[in-house]
Amino acid sequence: MKAVDIIIHKRDKETLSKDEIEFFVKGFTSGDIPDYQASSWAMAVLLNGMSDRETTDLTLAMAHSGEILDLSGVVKISLDKHSTGGVGDKTSLIVAPLVAACGLPFGKMSGRGLGFSGGTLDKLESIPGFRVDLSSAEFISQLRDIGIVLSGQSGNLAPADGKFYALRDVTGTVPSIPLIASSIMSKKIASGAQAMVLDVKVGNGAFMQTLEEARKLSRLMVSIANLSGRKAVCLLSDMNQPLGNAVGNALEVIEAIDVLHGGGPNDLVEHCLATTAYLVMLGKKRKNLAEARQLVEDVLRNGKAWEMFRKLVIAQGGDVATIDDPDLLPKANFNVTINSTANGYVKMVHARRIGEASVDLGAGRTQKGDPIDHAVGIVVHQKVGNYVLEGEPLFSIHSNSEARLEDGIKSVNKAFILSKDVCDPLPLFYEIVE
Amino acid sequence: MKAVDIIIHKRDKETLSKDEIEFFVKGFTSGDIPDYQASSWAMAVLLNGMSDRETTDLTLAMAHSGEILDLSGVVKISLDKHSTGGVGDKTSLIVAPLVAACGLPFGKMSGRGLGFSGGTLDKLESIPGFRVDLSSAEFISQLRDIGIVLSGQSGNLAPADGKFYALRDVTGTVPSIPLIASSIMSKKIASGAQAMVLDVKVGNGAFMQTLEEARKLSRLMVSIANLSGRKAVCLLSDMNQPLGNAVGNALEVIEAIDVLHGGGPNDLVEHCLATTAYLVMLGKKRKNLAEARQLVEDVLRNGKAWEMFRKLVIAQGGDVATIDDPDLLPKANFNVTINSTANGYVKMVHARRIGEASVDLGAGRTQKGDPIDHAVGIVVHQKVGNYVLEGEPLFSIHSNSEARLEDGIKSVNKAFILSKDVCDPLPLFYEIVE
Repeated sequence: MKAVDIIIHKRDKETLSKDEIEFFVKGFTSGDIPDYQASSWAMAVLLNGMSDRETTDLTLAMAHSGEILDLSGVVKISLDKHSTGGVGDKTSLIVAPLVAACGLPFGKMSGRGLGFSGGTLDKLESIPGFRVDLSSAEFISQLRDIGIVLSGQSGNLAPADGKFYALRDVTGTVPSIPLIASSIMSKKIASGAQAMVLDVKVGNGAFMQTLEEARKLSRLMVSIANLSGRKAVCLLSDMNQPLGNAVGNALEVIEAIDVLHGGGPNDLVEHCLATTAYLVMLGKKRKNLAEARQLVEDVLRNGKAWEMFRKLVIAQGGDVATIDDPDLLPKANFNVTINSTANGYVKMVHARRIGEASVDLGAGRTQKGDPIDHAVGIVVHQKVGNYVLEGEPLFSIHSNSEARLEDGIKSVNKAFILSKDVCDPLPLFYEIVE
Repeated sequence: MKAVDIIIHKRDKETLSKDEIEFFVKGFTSGDIPDYQASSWAMAVLLNGMSDRETTDLTLAMAHSGEILDLSGVVKISLDKHSTGGVGDKTSLIVAPLVAACGLPFGKMSGRGLGFSGGTLDKLESIPGFRVDLSSAEFISQLRDIGIVLSGQSGNLAPADGKFYALRDVTGTVPSIPLIASSIMSKKIASGAQAMVLDVKVGNGAFMQTLEEARKLSRLMVSIANLSGRKAVCLLSDMNQPLGNAVGNALEVIEAIDVLHGGGPNDLVEHCLATTAYLVMLGKKRKNLAEARQLVEDVLRNGKAWEMFRKLVIAQGGDVATIDDPDLLPKANFNVTINSTANGYVKMVHARRIGEASVDLGAGRTQKGDPIDHAVGIVVHQKVGNYVLEGEPLFSIHSNSEARLEDGIKSVNKAFILSKDVCDPLPLFYEIVE
């Protein structure tokens, strides 16, 4: 078998065999197949597509390019959750303790933020002392002991995906639905997931800009799960405005704590309850969605989810005093609230612009490895569809520099559009693909 | 400007600007743009195409990636000829002296054979002592002194093309009409050509398998010539059977000498007369094709073309005794003629199979740098459309090994198909694109 022939087959719109895909992934991972062949192949895949079967073979080949986490001795059904990334998406901080409080051990590996999109690890590191670099052994023993883990990727999981993604990033081959799906699913499979909820964001603050694209990606990921003997449910959720109100690391932790105490913005609460209900059903803790939902609401109301979050923070070395009194979490020097200068309906709270403004404030990074400021960020006080009176708060900026504060106010002002005409609120979920 | 953005533009079917193309070619030539970006770009070009303007910009950028031969002080109009490669194509050995004998100085840089397709340099090296590695200075001074040169590529011509072609070869990005056209034309422009005849072969023994492909390539090359202030005429010629009778290096030199003495196979003679007539017209030696053709026939008949060939051989160090008496050229140990075992019309003399059989005999190479045997090869004694009687010769094999002789007979037998039904001869030319 020769790499160039596999490229030629895909170039000529042929369907690749499992052997060809495995040969290519193995060769690329080992370095036998050079980058220049992998990038030309990736472009052929992007332009000519791949079948569900090919994408599943690619996913499994990438998953098996390194260690596969085996959680079979620890949990009955290994559950996972993934978000394709958005602005203000702190759901993992809430969903993980909710699932665990329902009696389903839940260990999840998360990522860092890049560009306008935040990352769970950065948010968790707002809590002084919180460790995200657990080894596979630590991950498994914590999951066994307390039933909840939130960490970075442990061990050598799906190294082919890491190498391939870095190459795609510089060769114009990122926006391919099969390549995105196999990248997401290979990491989930390598981290041991048997059943998962995939939160596929749609909108200007998401990677998928249209419902059609999101639907394609979702159907493909569900198909990969089925073809590989797993189960996936995709929630297609709105990302045209931030999820919840807070955007920025410590600010989002504070909001998550609010939710776990029974408060927090309605959209975020509802998003987390729905997501968790699906996980509880996938984990076979309840027979149907309605019963699952009831259980999730119970563990939120009775404080068990909050207790789980405390256990998590303590287990991973976080200073529990800072979550018991969120005033002790990192705080910015400047905190300014901007009020509306007119009456009107909120037509737009542009998620991407707010995400970018939060990066400019220091809350995110433009390049991998950039340092971030956990204290800074933005809190929006309005959602699309609200009627706002002149003088009512629109948003607050938390900044550690006066210059950045000014820039932030300008940028976020541009993200808000008010209208004289009635505006419908945005849906929370567009559809469920399972 | 960033390389990845140029890749993305082409991936998204946009038209690249001249600046973008120059940036990409310069960066790739210098090594600033790595192979993995060039290959992903090449695949995007192959699958999404390029306009004539883009292809011309690419051609000129590659031509200017190295030295440009300046023949303005030596010839009025610098003429060139190129064949896309075929089996038994020894036309350069005949056309060059014909053009020069018409009073138009003619210097041409040729290549070596690879795969089933032969190369002019290998054929010339059948003549003991013949040197093909002339420097640019030698090339120019010989052209000035005697008006004829046939050599390998001198100097650092179109290095971007050389580098790019090597990459395309291993990344499945060879069969792109814009990339093929720009590769051919960049070398022609770098070697100083102002007007050229391009012999575009069509058929099983050619790179272009269909007339439609050949037409596209031809139109594009003519367009590149026009857009870059040059002139090109494409002759779309048949390559389903070998051109002439001889296939193999010394055997083809002997056939070329035959033609220059007024003999040789009709198809080859006609091909060379037509090609040369176009060059004589492009070189403005005659006003129209009919008058040009008359002049070419004259210099063939009166021996001036043969004299030019002798001058060429002497100037480049070849042993002139071997062309005066071709019996002195390299000769194989075994020479066997195979006769027809039935009566019938010749339906097929499969060019590609004969080309491959000649490589197997040692006349060509499967990889660059392989040594070749100048003596061996095949002579076909029949053309498609001929009526052959049982016992009449079909072909001869010249081999230096008995085993290879046997294999050669088997292979070439498979290339011949006889039929009870009348078969039309194949056309020499399909059409002219200018």
